[in-house]
Amino acid sequence: MITNSPLQTDLYQLTMAAAYWQAATAEQESVFHLFFRRLPFKGGYAIAAGLEPALEWLESFRFGTAELDYLAGLKTKAATPLFKEEFLGYLGDLRLKLDIDAVPEGELVFAHEPVLRVQGPILHAQLAETALLNILNFQTLVATKAARVCHAAARSPVVEFGYRRAQGPDGGYSASRAAWIGGCTGTSNVLAGQRFGIPVLGTHAHSWVMSFDDELEAFERYAEAMPDNSTLLVDTYDTLKGVDHAITVARKLREKGHELNGIRLDSGDLAWLSQQARAKLDAAGFPDVKVVASNDLDEHIIESLRHQGARIDTWGVGTNLVTAADQPALGGVYKLAALRKADGSWQPRIKLSEQTAKSSIPGRLQVRRFESEGMLVGDAIYDVDRSISGEVEIVDPSDPIRRKKIAAGTVYKDVLQPAMKAGARVFAPEPLAAARERCQAALAKLHPGILRLANPHSYPAGLEQGLYQERERLLASFR
Amino acid sequence: MITNSPLQTDLYQLTMAAAYWQAATAEQESVFHLFFRRLPFKGGYAIAAGLEPALEWLESFRFGTAELDYLAGLKTKAATPLFKEEFLGYLGDLRLKLDIDAVPEGELVFAHEPVLRVQGPILHAQLAETALLNILNFQTLVATKAARVCHAAARSPVVEFGYRRAQGPDGGYSASRAAWIGGCTGTSNVLAGQRFGIPVLGTHAHSWVMSFDDELEAFERYAEAMPDNSTLLVDTYDTLKGVDHAITVARKLREKGHELNGIRLDSGDLAWLSQQARAKLDAAGFPDVKVVASNDLDEHIIESLRHQGARIDTWGVGTNLVTAADQPALGGVYKLAALRKADGSWQPRIKLSEQTAKSSIPGRLQVRRFESEGMLVGDAIYDVDRSISGEVEIVDPSDPIRRKKIAAGTVYKDVLQPAMKAGARVFAPEPLAAARERCQAALAKLHPGILRLANPHSYPAGLEQGLYQERERLLASFR
Repeated sequence: MITNSPLQTDLYQLTMAAAYWQAATAEQESVFHLFFRRLPFKGGYAIAAGLEPALEWLESFRFGTAELDYLAGLKTKAATPLFKEEFLGYLGDLRLKLDIDAVPEGELVFAHEPVLRVQGPILHAQLAETALLNILNFQTLVATKAARVCHAAARSPVVEFGYRRAQGPDGGYSASRAAWIGGCTGTSNVLAGQRFGIPVLGTHAHSWVMSFDDELEAFERYAEAMPDNSTLLVDTYDTLKGVDHAITVARKLREKGHELNGIRLDSGDLAWLSQQARAKLDAAGFPDVKVVASNDLDEHIIESLRHQGARIDTWGVGTNLVTAADQPALGGVYKLAALRKADGSWQPRIKLSEQTAKSSIPGRLQVRRFESEGMLVGDAIYDVDRSISGEVEIVDPSDPIRRKKIAAGTVYKDVLQPAMKAGARVFAPEPLAAARERCQAALAKLHPGILRLANPHSYPAGLEQGLYQERERLLASFR
Repeated sequence: MITNSPLQTDLYQLTMAAAYWQAATAEQESVFHLFFRRLPFKGGYAIAAGLEPALEWLESFRFGTAELDYLAGLKTKAATPLFKEEFLGYLGDLRLKLDIDAVPEGELVFAHEPVLRVQGPILHAQLAETALLNILNFQTLVATKAARVCHAAARSPVVEFGYRRAQGPDGGYSASRAAWIGGCTGTSNVLAGQRFGIPVLGTHAHSWVMSFDDELEAFERYAEAMPDNSTLLVDTYDTLKGVDHAITVARKLREKGHELNGIRLDSGDLAWLSQQARAKLDAAGFPDVKVVASNDLDEHIIESLRHQGARIDTWGVGTNLVTAADQPALGGVYKLAALRKADGSWQPRIKLSEQTAKSSIPGRLQVRRFESEGMLVGDAIYDVDRSISGEVEIVDPSDPIRRKKIAAGTVYKDVLQPAMKAGARVFAPEPLAAARERCQAALAKLHPGILRLANPHSYPAGLEQGLYQERERLLASFR
């Protein structure tokens, strides 16, 4: 595992930096947006996450001797040095002087909206690209997945259990963080508990049971060691016999003034087994012993189990959550959108694509989010250098026929908030719980049809009309 | 990003550890195997990877004050301390004393075969479980994916470009490492280049072109800065015009004694565009300028493009490789397989499952790999405490009708190699290139039908007959 390094980047960012430096355009003031073109999981929304670790990376950015020595040793195919010594000297002195405006962690974000607006010297913005994408793409993906899983579980707690199959040590660590922002109740990942204050939870493994000659003995020994914290895994051999053994232990614990926390099911027909287990526990006088279920769960299986009448109190979700298994990458991009001219004004820039919808959005962008009667009614992406007021018309860039008018005077907020000015933080790191609460509050303002897992309503998020026209004009100028 | 910590684990490993300690079974000598039940990607093989970082984690294992203080603060639902002070004292003194036998990195591994055999006090083995799974699952997955992608590309180089969409900082870093073991030629990830000595490669981005008023000017400036290292991205506006601009620059470079390295295509119909680009480059006298292609490639798209006659020299593969997008988790497990009895003999242990094939394999396992005329002919998983000699019969645990006999005297090697004894390394870290070469050598010994991407032949890997019978006997004893 690794600590922050400016070498967390693609080589081409460094060769481009060398070329900007040589072309004397390194200080050219630029604006980039980090955004994605499609909502993940065919869902109706996404939850922004990863800003704080991204800011930490930006703050830590510094080429030390080891990094510069490594770069000095790189050669071209012609065996010439890849980087000039003077350029490496320049890198050694470089501190990133970027302005960052960002969607706060836990906040809703939709397709085409900037998750981040990065403004500053083009060389600086370019050197930050890869790390920003890496951090924000993944955490936004997992926070969104977690929100979906928690939505499927309705009010029941969801515990993230994914570390063992996460994509590397930090894949697990970042995922635990993002999953908590998205609504999970806790994690099994102890490091994430220590570093982020996320509640840590757990039961025991099959190996505990297998290490004794007999399941009942294994349960008794575990309960002796953890009298106030026992959730017994009942499916090592025969699940319903396991429930009986757990009830025997629950009685013994109660005699000593303790209560069994729960049992865990990790295989078989979770709907039927949970009903049987619940009935046994209730009949034995343990209505408060929780039934925890795990085993390759995701939002769709949880929804199905609930529809089947499963009696599951807590859901342990691992692999499918932390790897976002049905879509393991967000596909966020980082596109140049404006350059400052000598006269101080901004010149919009656009990347063409054969599909108009895939072309980038020019300008210096902000997102205005409108609200009516406590519910969100639409987002307008607009250019901060153009005035926007009165009635606002929102145009879907993927389908310009789809438009929505927002009446003048509708309540709104601008979603992107200043996070860094010239490389210095604008605010102190917030507690992670603040991001989690922001997420809950935001989701509560979305129409249930947008929250739906399959074929959700499409939230009206698009370009403010004037920006839409400006983009069309630029696109036409290339044809 | 984070550095190695003993808290990279699931909470239940620590509560089980507390329970083993309290039950006075912490020192019970045990054997666990780390294995997976199905080959990833519906493929015919897997490539083991991740051993070296796993050994580094094991070596670094130590609870410091910060970790112990955190654990001391954890409470049960009844507000009692989760861990006893004496137990935390024990943890503070704990050093892992495990014997590790492992499949070397880059070596082939098949379903049910141990990637790792872990032997030692059960408490130690349990505290290592989560981190070992996390590291080996992911790197084995990506090394296997890389081998598939490189197979699809035949002899053309594949460069791993995935950092920006990898699962977190370390997800990218680990993936670059594993992808190189699996056969990639290089990576765009500069940190992986620095730390592992992997060749770093790159071109430039669309933003470089967009930062100038004109594509030709952008190419010229880049070539001036990188005369011996220019691969020009030609699709920012109009791809074939971009190729013409690149040719103009190639001529200017040649006048100055340099050669253009290549052009890159990142969108559109890569088969057709690569043919057009090749024709233009050849006609202009640049047959050695390479055509690099990228854009959501994977092994299937590469195979299809080659079948379509695409003229692509180098493949840049990102997201689908580093996230192993079609199967983003390997599903490796870590199962108790034997306990040492007071008399020193080993008692096999088994985890049942409703499906026999999902039940674990008891014993202390090794894999014997047989070879005939330079090709691999079969793997027999056997128990090191049972003799195996003469003719060996291999039984597929998923389908016991499928058996293969290996004649007495067939050449073989035992695949698991000692890596740690009582917590100390048996060998010094090997250069990563050694793992990559091992992978190439191993793949060369597989029948082409097993290497095939879709519906490959199934390599005969299964249980040695005596072990198969012993497992059946144990399973029957539970019925």
